[in-house]
Amino acid sequence: MPYVNIKITNESVTSEKKAALISGVTELLQKVLGKNPATTVVVIDEVDTDNWGIAGEQVSLRRMRGN
Amino acid sequence: MPYVNIKITNESVTSEKKAALISGVTELLQKVLGKNPATTVVVIDEVDTDNWGIAGEQVSLRRMRGN
Amino acid sequence: MPYVNIKITNESVTSEKKAALISGVTELLQKVLGKNPATTVVVIDEVDTDNWGIAGEQVSLRRMRGN
Amino acid sequence: MPYVNIKITNESVTSEKKAALISGVTELLQKVLGKNPATTVVVIDEVDTDNWGIAGEQVSLRRMRGN
Amino acid sequence: MPYVNIKITNESVTSEKKAALISGVTELLQKVLGKNPATTVVVIDEVDTDNWGIAGEQVSLRRMRGN
Amino acid sequence: MPYVNIKITNESVTSEKKAALISGVTELLQKVLGKNPATTVVVIDEVDTDNWGIAGEQVSLRRMRGN
Repeated sequence: MPYVNIKITNESVTSEKKAALISGVTELLQKVLGKNPATTVVVIDEVDTDNWGIAGEQVSLRRMRGN
Repeated sequence: MPYVNIKITNESVTSEKKAALISGVTELLQKVLGKNPATTVVVIDEVDTDNWGIAGEQVSLRRMRGN
Repeated sequence: MPYVNIKITNESVTSEKKAALISGVTELLQKVLGKNPATTVVVIDEVDTDNWGIAGEQVSLRRMRGN
Repeated sequence: MPYVNIKITNESVTSEKKAALISGVTELLQKVLGKNPATTVVVIDEVDTDNWGIAGEQVSLRRMRGN
Repeated sequence: MPYVNIKITNESVTSEKKAALISGVTELLQKVLGKNPATTVVVIDEVDTDNWGIAGEQVSLRRMRGN
Repeated sequence: MPYVNIKITNESVTSEKKAALISGVTELLQKVLGKNPATTVVVIDEVDTDNWGIAGEQVSLRRMRGN
């Protein structure tokens, strides 16, 4: 029954990698807390780099500088 | 003043159905808790089926199998 | 499979009223979108009135003035 | 280390305005709480006006009426 | 830079288990997406069983029936 | 109509500081985007340091080491 929300920047994440995040988080919750995988929900949000800020500036600007 | 966030998979939900969700939730909060509809906020997120996981796998894969 | 998050101020909401919110939202999603109640998740957050702001001020201050 | 999520309607917000929100919120958290800007995260969600409800109706309908 | 929010029911989760969730999710994001652990944020919300609904009813009621 | 959620660690934040966050964010949204303060909602979540992870470990452990 857990609900997990993963927010990452939208930078060409493949469907296979999303599948790996979903199965990995679901297994982790089963292993650590004994949660039933059947009712574990995972939602991945891909956020535009213009809309994600760290250290007071947009990730899109940091990427332009090579960060 | 309540804030409600509804997350559903992005599968051709019409604007009319979204309107029905918004009015329905707002009425429910008024009926059950006496909340003022004027300041009740509802936000609907439509999530790609590749980005939604249940039972450790993507909804997109489940849909391919007819689930 | 929908996930609904309801945020309200923490002002003596009874367990019965929470149950009414949960069943009401779940029925709404079944009626409007045909969503399976078995996998519909509802999470209610009760937020301290000091931590909720509207119109630039805390709800706790508004309550003191009778709003 | 704070995490701030700003949800606004998706109505032609420029990248410059997003940058101003990100820097402004980060400065506010430093000024008020002494939080380190280096680890302050800000995520902006732009929500379709069909998916945002206030007073029981979609913002898209309110915009049509000039609200 | 990812942000992960894990919502679970509030049922005596030890600090050690929370630590295992935090390190496990952080490692998963590094392994799958190459994300830098130094800026990966994880927030765990423990939700009262009265405030969590599944299948239209409160988890607290399900627990009383032994579910 | 914007909705802002601020998550910070639960470390003795006074009501006055919360008020300053709420008014500051509301003014920022008015100044940058012209948003009406009357319908701007701000919710502050204070998260236990055991439940907040950064760099793969709990903030509570980092605080013990003086970070």
